[in-house]
Amino acid sequence: MTDIDQLCISTIRLLSVDAVSKANSGHPGAPLGMAPVAHALWQQMKFDPKNPHWVNRDRFVLSNGHACALLYSMLHLYGFDMSIDDLKQFRQLNSKTPGHPETHEVPGVEVTTGPLGQGISNAVGLAIAQKQFAATYNKDDVTISDSYVYAFLGDGCLQEGVASEASSLAGHLQLNNLIAFWDDNHISIDGNTDCAFTENVPERYRAYGWHIIEIPHGDTDLAAVKDAIEEAKKVDKPTLVRLTTTIGFGSKQAGTGSVHGSPLKADDVKQLKESMGFDPEKSFVVPTEVYSHYNEHVNKNQEIYREWQSKLETYKSKYPKEGAEVERRLAHKLPENWADALPTYKPDDKPLATRKLSENVLNAILPIIPELIGGSADLTGSNLTRGADTTDFQPPNTNLGNYAGRYLRYGVREHGMGAIMNGIAAFGANYKNYGGTFLNFVSYAAGAVRLAALSHLPVTWVATHDSIGLGEDGPTHQPIETLAWLRATPNISVWRPADGNEVSAAYKSAIDSTSTPHVLALTRQNLPQLEGSSIEKASKGAYTIHKAENPDLIIVSSGSEVSISIDAAKKLADEGFKTSVVSVADFHTFDKQTRDYQLSVLPDGVPILSVEVLSSFGWSKYSHEQFGLNRFGASGKADDLYKFFEFTPDGIADRGAKTISFYKGKPILSPLNHAF
Amino acid sequence: MTDIDQLCISTIRLLSVDAVSKANSGHPGAPLGMAPVAHALWQQMKFDPKNPHWVNRDRFVLSNGHACALLYSMLHLYGFDMSIDDLKQFRQLNSKTPGHPETHEVPGVEVTTGPLGQGISNAVGLAIAQKQFAATYNKDDVTISDSYVYAFLGDGCLQEGVASEASSLAGHLQLNNLIAFWDDNHISIDGNTDCAFTENVPERYRAYGWHIIEIPHGDTDLAAVKDAIEEAKKVDKPTLVRLTTTIGFGSKQAGTGSVHGSPLKADDVKQLKESMGFDPEKSFVVPTEVYSHYNEHVNKNQEIYREWQSKLETYKSKYPKEGAEVERRLAHKLPENWADALPTYKPDDKPLATRKLSENVLNAILPIIPELIGGSADLTGSNLTRGADTTDFQPPNTNLGNYAGRYLRYGVREHGMGAIMNGIAAFGANYKNYGGTFLNFVSYAAGAVRLAALSHLPVTWVATHDSIGLGEDGPTHQPIETLAWLRATPNISVWRPADGNEVSAAYKSAIDSTSTPHVLALTRQNLPQLEGSSIEKASKGAYTIHKAENPDLIIVSSGSEVSISIDAAKKLADEGFKTSVVSVADFHTFDKQTRDYQLSVLPDGVPILSVEVLSSFGWSKYSHEQFGLNRFGASGKADDLYKFFEFTPDGIADRGAKTISFYKGKPILSPLNHAF
Repeated sequence: MTDIDQLCISTIRLLSVDAVSKANSGHPGAPLGMAPVAHALWQQMKFDPKNPHWVNRDRFVLSNGHACALLYSMLHLYGFDMSIDDLKQFRQLNSKTPGHPETHEVPGVEVTTGPLGQGISNAVGLAIAQKQFAATYNKDDVTISDSYVYAFLGDGCLQEGVASEASSLAGHLQLNNLIAFWDDNHISIDGNTDCAFTENVPERYRAYGWHIIEIPHGDTDLAAVKDAIEEAKKVDKPTLVRLTTTIGFGSKQAGTGSVHGSPLKADDVKQLKESMGFDPEKSFVVPTEVYSHYNEHVNKNQEIYREWQSKLETYKSKYPKEGAEVERRLAHKLPENWADALPTYKPDDKPLATRKLSENVLNAILPIIPELIGGSADLTGSNLTRGADTTDFQPPNTNLGNYAGRYLRYGVREHGMGAIMNGIAAFGANYKNYGGTFLNFVSYAAGAVRLAALSHLPVTWVATHDSIGLGEDGPTHQPIETLAWLRATPNISVWRPADGNEVSAAYKSAIDSTSTPHVLALTRQNLPQLEGSSIEKASKGAYTIHKAENPDLIIVSSGSEVSISIDAAKKLADEGFKTSVVSVADFHTFDKQTRDYQLSVLPDGVPILSVEVLSSFGWSKYSHEQFGLNRFGASGKADDLYKFFEFTPDGIADRGAKTISFYKGKPILSPLNHAF
Repeated sequence: MTDIDQLCISTIRLLSVDAVSKANSGHPGAPLGMAPVAHALWQQMKFDPKNPHWVNRDRFVLSNGHACALLYSMLHLYGFDMSIDDLKQFRQLNSKTPGHPETHEVPGVEVTTGPLGQGISNAVGLAIAQKQFAATYNKDDVTISDSYVYAFLGDGCLQEGVASEASSLAGHLQLNNLIAFWDDNHISIDGNTDCAFTENVPERYRAYGWHIIEIPHGDTDLAAVKDAIEEAKKVDKPTLVRLTTTIGFGSKQAGTGSVHGSPLKADDVKQLKESMGFDPEKSFVVPTEVYSHYNEHVNKNQEIYREWQSKLETYKSKYPKEGAEVERRLAHKLPENWADALPTYKPDDKPLATRKLSENVLNAILPIIPELIGGSADLTGSNLTRGADTTDFQPPNTNLGNYAGRYLRYGVREHGMGAIMNGIAAFGANYKNYGGTFLNFVSYAAGAVRLAALSHLPVTWVATHDSIGLGEDGPTHQPIETLAWLRATPNISVWRPADGNEVSAAYKSAIDSTSTPHVLALTRQNLPQLEGSSIEKASKGAYTIHKAENPDLIIVSSGSEVSISIDAAKKLADEGFKTSVVSVADFHTFDKQTRDYQLSVLPDGVPILSVEVLSSFGWSKYSHEQFGLNRFGASGKADDLYKFFEFTPDGIADRGAKTISFYKGKPILSPLNHAF
């Protein structure tokens, strides 16, 4: 280690410690331990702080996101948009330096981390996207994509199942563009990892198909980090570098759990600074030589960036078709008029399951949107997520596909799939990616779904078998609470389309989205094509699909219950009750409409009954009375279940009549009216 | 294999195939493949069909729950309460044979399975409970617990992260009472496992610390199953038996994905029956010799059961104290008057975080409830879940604890923890068990939480850091949608206590529960002890904690916002608006109260405003107006965040005043009034 290396590392350490101390909150242990590897690794990475979204940059993922003081320090030293003042605002309200790194808030943060296991799984997604992008566009004579994905992860990440799932898949996919550094410091919050985590991690990762490199002296051995990267780049597998470090290196509490998540004591900071040759009275100090050192690397990287730019020009002139496509994708523009390809339906078209209608959409748009890729968590034949004539994304030596393939076999790994989907979206290049599973099992991926929403990632869940309508598989597979959970999560569009036109509208919203994840809840059972539906109307989130003048009742419903509700409305009409039906395809979209439009759909003066064969929790937002399923389902034929739970025209009409009678003579406010 | 073995196996296979065919729905592949191992294994198991809850029975877990036709067939042949008519009702509404096995519906089904990865993880919990029970009560001269846990699992289970987490912990804990059979048939729904699952499973499990046994001819080699069990019983590790089988054995589609999840075609069933020497015209046939064969085993087992009963009598006379305790636990009775130990508080007691108040409860009741055990997913110091003077549950050779220990170090494995908690509860012996993590990360375990609710398992989640009140960790850690999700799930009690008395009420509900899981949402920040709270009042789920006569407004709130709401009410009183405050500690409990009581709390004629610093989704159930946090949180000091989002007395009073003014002169119905 040279003097300047040492000085750089000390600077990183002390910036991080100062940030935590000033905030009086945060995690000093991992930054102190991992500063050397961060310093050594970043010198091997290509990226340009002035063009942080350059598609061919190497990506850095801090899977142990609690160590973010380290990341923010690196971003500052490398000249990203991260000032010393920002570091001083660490963990303060509305700062650029939140308590865990958030990608949409901080330039240079590739993915949002903190919830353990997510980052390394996002890294698998980033690596998949890079492979797919490279295989799609690189030519023998012009390579426009050859970047790597680097990740730091701790013992916590390694214990999380989501990381196990993603790592197993990464091994299968032979993602040799993924290089991960495990901070093997033997400490987690409960103390020594001996108390709960004594498995042989390298053996486990070997079993997944990873290459393993061990660096026993991670506190000091910078050369080994460089060598490890070189070695990793030569193998045909993802690499896990086991880096033995000392948590809280240099602190009086080094090597213990107490240095993990609390600021160092003042005297500890003092001795730390003194031992590193820094003035203990000063904070947030960066020696000029340190800035110069990093600046030199940035200059080199900017040269590499400029070379890449001219390479791209060459590419565009030699391969104008692909070049135009790459250019379009890098501008985050979809192919023009792509939505014209969305199928539309008329009432006399035959009834189909919305999962099947979803397949129709995929078959229509996959050929014209090359950035659309997707897969399923081992439910391809049930989710109907694989377009005709699609190639699997597989290592070529498997003879099962190739890296330009656009269909991902995720295996039975819902949470891993969710985190990988987030990583693919975070890669950029306009990737639109989807993943299929049963709606009920989207819950397995709740940790990743929430991070998609928080990180503004436009991923799409194709969530089939969306109610008791799935039938015999029974309550273990029948979602009840799932839609309430998703609708209560900020920034998720949760579509439950009622027919083919609404399925097309759902996809239009999903593919057009740049910052909102989508969940499409789709049926296993057939639904009729409805009179009065259209892509345009459904694109407002909710609309009157069956209109009565001066109605006595409005039924708001979604998905498979809309057509039954229309039948109920007709029944009620026969009984003399004028009834309109509103299809609520997506709460999130409807909430964004103008107030006038909203009130035109759900006006004052009419009692409103909601009908959906899942938990009614939350439907009072749009209705006065709720008819839902507030218990677990049952195993039986779908028709039998609908009858048993009375989700029939009769059952709905009966509740409609009771609603009308209950509100008769009472003044009725639309539930959209609020006091504030 | 003897003739009778072959006949038994053919009978199991055909009963399963007939069940699936009659239902025209289900999974014939795995039963056909696993009938031999089921036959061979069950002969080695001790259990008594007439006493299915015998505490010292061996447990059988079908982790690949879709193979339940196999399990139901075994239950029938062994004389459990499962008739041929029940088999004929396979997958029909209100039958005893649902599409996936449900423990509370079917005697002999130990845990509810189907959602993959859960069963094997439950099995880890069952094994932990057995170890803990044995270590607590066995004496050198009388062994009352020495049972084993057996599990079947498929490739799907092995891919799920929850199973990875639980298996890693099982290895660490050296659970040599757990013996799992992996149905290595190389097929999952997407086809050959080569497409997504090519890791080396035995190496992975060795890395976890498991013993591995390979049975290459699992279709025929019954002796190897017996040998494997004997070998497994001798090692000091959990055992994974890799059993190579043929999915859909004997079917024309054997060895392919198409036999996994669809009934066999009629001609296939015909040739299958013929090839096995059965009459192809008959269905649901059990040869008398088969009944006799299994009955013989049952008789032997009943002898073992009787021996155990007399052993228990010996135990009780030799060790009257422990004997009485065991007897009490087996009767599912708590220690008398245990609840008297619950702490109570007065308004002048000092403010404390509800997580700290939770620790107070644990310290008070752990010494008197020996069946109360718990742990944390590596957040012990944050969740405050470890009672003083508690011993860790650890293998004695680690010198970190012993098997009689009552504190579990789960590691960073929330989903695994959830599934293991379910397994511990399913063991019986009145186990009450809890697990700690941040509320936001209960979502990682959503799959297990829902199964606890569906399976009626009284487990308790100690979910701390329950809002933006956790402060600087920021939005990655701050729950928003979590309570809406949990409250929308059937059969979960979701407590958000406002002070010490309410925390005690929450624990009273949790410990008394026999069939409802509990989630206790607890604060990181201090809360005052409230005037007007009591265990008794809070035990109704919701009650008026701050009463105004003829109020102009009622505020319904929970947890940390109750005291702020009371301050807002006082402020409003100063402005001339009489305001009551209702603490809603648990929706689930409040919903079970009498209608009169409910309407006394939330009467007609008064506008109601809800205040909770999480998603307001669902609060319209109890209120006309909602003040919540319908966006992600932020990183900052807790006080700053509360001010920024206006969850202050001023912010609440302002919305209260607007609510009063908005509803002035309008007739107001209690939101509890419904048309049907």
